[in-house]
Amino acid sequence: MRDTSRVSDEPIINSMLDIDFYKFSMGRLIHELHPNVPVTLSFKNRTKDVRLLKHVDINELREQLEFVRKYVKFGNTDLHYLRGTNEYRERMFPEPYLQFLKNMSLPEFDLRNIGGELFLVFYGKWSEVTYWETIALSIINELYYRSIMNGLSQFERQVHYSQGILNLHEKIKKINEYAKAIFSEFGTRRRFFREWQDRVVEILKAEIPAQLFRGTSNVFLANKYELEPMGTNAHEMQMVYSGIYYDLDDAKGYLHSQEKFLEDWEATYGLDLSIALPDTFGSDYFFQQTFIPMGKMATWKGTRWDSGDPFQYGDARINEYKSIGVDPTTKVILFSDGLDVDRIIEICNYFNGRIKTTFGWGTNLTNDLGFKPLSLVVKVTQANGHPVCKLSDNISKATGEVSAIQRMKKLTCYTTEFNQPCRY
Amino acid sequence: MRDTSRVSDEPIINSMLDIDFYKFSMGRLIHELHPNVPVTLSFKNRTKDVRLLKHVDINELREQLEFVRKYVKFGNTDLHYLRGTNEYRERMFPEPYLQFLKNMSLPEFDLRNIGGELFLVFYGKWSEVTYWETIALSIINELYYRSIMNGLSQFERQVHYSQGILNLHEKIKKINEYAKAIFSEFGTRRRFFREWQDRVVEILKAEIPAQLFRGTSNVFLANKYELEPMGTNAHEMQMVYSGIYYDLDDAKGYLHSQEKFLEDWEATYGLDLSIALPDTFGSDYFFQQTFIPMGKMATWKGTRWDSGDPFQYGDARINEYKSIGVDPTTKVILFSDGLDVDRIIEICNYFNGRIKTTFGWGTNLTNDLGFKPLSLVVKVTQANGHPVCKLSDNISKATGEVSAIQRMKKLTCYTTEFNQPCRY
Repeated sequence: MRDTSRVSDEPIINSMLDIDFYKFSMGRLIHELHPNVPVTLSFKNRTKDVRLLKHVDINELREQLEFVRKYVKFGNTDLHYLRGTNEYRERMFPEPYLQFLKNMSLPEFDLRNIGGELFLVFYGKWSEVTYWETIALSIINELYYRSIMNGLSQFERQVHYSQGILNLHEKIKKINEYAKAIFSEFGTRRRFFREWQDRVVEILKAEIPAQLFRGTSNVFLANKYELEPMGTNAHEMQMVYSGIYYDLDDAKGYLHSQEKFLEDWEATYGLDLSIALPDTFGSDYFFQQTFIPMGKMATWKGTRWDSGDPFQYGDARINEYKSIGVDPTTKVILFSDGLDVDRIIEICNYFNGRIKTTFGWGTNLTNDLGFKPLSLVVKVTQANGHPVCKLSDNISKATGEVSAIQRMKKLTCYTTEFNQPCRY
Repeated sequence: MRDTSRVSDEPIINSMLDIDFYKFSMGRLIHELHPNVPVTLSFKNRTKDVRLLKHVDINELREQLEFVRKYVKFGNTDLHYLRGTNEYRERMFPEPYLQFLKNMSLPEFDLRNIGGELFLVFYGKWSEVTYWETIALSIINELYYRSIMNGLSQFERQVHYSQGILNLHEKIKKINEYAKAIFSEFGTRRRFFREWQDRVVEILKAEIPAQLFRGTSNVFLANKYELEPMGTNAHEMQMVYSGIYYDLDDAKGYLHSQEKFLEDWEATYGLDLSIALPDTFGSDYFFQQTFIPMGKMATWKGTRWDSGDPFQYGDARINEYKSIGVDPTTKVILFSDGLDVDRIIEICNYFNGRIKTTFGWGTNLTNDLGFKPLSLVVKVTQANGHPVCKLSDNISKATGEVSAIQRMKKLTCYTTEFNQPCRY
């Protein structure tokens, strides 16, 4: 097994596949339909009590980001992997998109220390700027934990790695004993560091049956360990669409932008990647005003829960499926917010036999070595010249400018009272 | 840090310094006074429920032992280290002894499977055969744990290493917090494997102040990590002496052999290594009939507790010191049997301010990775043509032929009723 106690200055991201798969499933659509929409992605630290710049050297961060911009390109081998991706549909990435990737450069960024806080935004064409998201998060997270680890003795670091191994062992034991929870690894953006995620994925593959451990969101690791690359789409889509169709939404009091996105997604991939992410502007609005009226509740494979209460969420979906005459056991919910092994088993148990469940297990899987994990995000804040936001079903997870949040709350009659600190 | 998850076939002992220091402090005396006494050392597994030959391949064991006999010699660098040893007294190893080591070959051994049990004896001149003790124990122990580890997955092995690191961390934390217990590492013979002991010693040196962690019994590691090599003498001395002076003991009903050894030891090293090991034939006899009457209770630095009840032992010594007008706080007890961190602190607390304490911490320090440790010994069974034995203050630790045990019990009026399974 690799020596992970080495804490070095080496580049954190050295492959353009070392990002989440959904960047490509979204990326193809963006490239085909809205390549030139100007988009701004903003970094946000939701962990209020950690001042990142006390740990992360801003010049080192700049070097890491610049390294990716200047030296990390899609190589022929990377494109072979993407071209050969057939897990969802044959030839899901057409040649023009792959050629675009080959020639693409990541756009510039604006990195500053503003009053002691880390300010970092990425702006450019949507088709290019989108790839910064998980790259930036992986880099900032790793620089933070490198700095924590560098303050420890070699033995103290070893103690944390050992605690990480034992925590992973406990998770694997519970997953294998329970033997019913199906999950994928989603921890790229908040991993302790790259090699730790690599080790975790290698161990998961070796120790958990393939019918339970289904794959990883990390394309590089999916490739390395012959696993299924996992992912569909993110809040980013509906957020940018709300900027593209800004006037349409505003004029009619109805989120045409949301409808547009669902139609474009299905036009691109059919039903092969038909997992809806409903909480961008509140799940109540999404299901009642958009997804069910559009008839997609019946046809799409399922939905993703990413905020709010998972039990209420699932119960509501089961009732909706029944109310439209659909057998809920033919549908799936992908749970992806703040999971740990006990919560996974609790949720799985609760819905056992009532609806299919699967889990996207992130932070707690790749960053559980005895340190508090950070809740860092990179979210769209401007699209097509308009401020945009995400509300989610937990208002403490909302992102974006206040004006955009207020507008969307009003537009969707957002009334959700669920408000809990982000777990991760 | 080294990769310890590798489980290989490489030689276990590849340095003649990779043995306990007391082999040399005893070895000099043996070489000078009794080099040609025929001695038999016998291997014994005191862990009744483990059939070693179910785990240890007898041919592999033979190869490991033969490798040491044929290829591992005292080199000039080894002799430089021994020649330079000045921790106890200047030039404690005279040149003739070092030249003897340089030219020495380990004697032959007899290794067999007898009814499924591992039979292993070493016989030869005392001055040569003595070095087999810790070499054989380190080899058998490591082969046993290699076989256990080879039955596990790479991850399961990593889990055990991680557990070992966390257990060590817990020990270090308690030792540093308590800040009063002085100890040395004595785990060569029962180490999980060589590199694990190496790692443990490296970590102890890095993490514990030198006034608490005083050194290691392993000469190779003392050399490698610039630590004090620790050790004085073992039961072996009095056992062989009981063979050498067999008729003298028998004829007079008094252990002249014990007296002879103490005199020879002091004649060799003065009071520099004057730690008495009293329990070979029972501590009661030793103190009442030999040590106190000889006047050495007052002059020697202290004694070693290696069996029985440590609190009773220490209380008895304190009373004896007082009864002869010696301040017990000027004397030391070295505790060396079945220790763990809580027991060390308990003993240290109990005697705090009453007598000096120090601890020789073995098995539990170098073999605590979640497996049951084995209690293996290599003890003298024949010396000078006579069967010899050890009684100890815990009759379950007695070794030797029944006839020898009966003889010695009778001779010393042994009445100890303490009888507990060997902890390690």
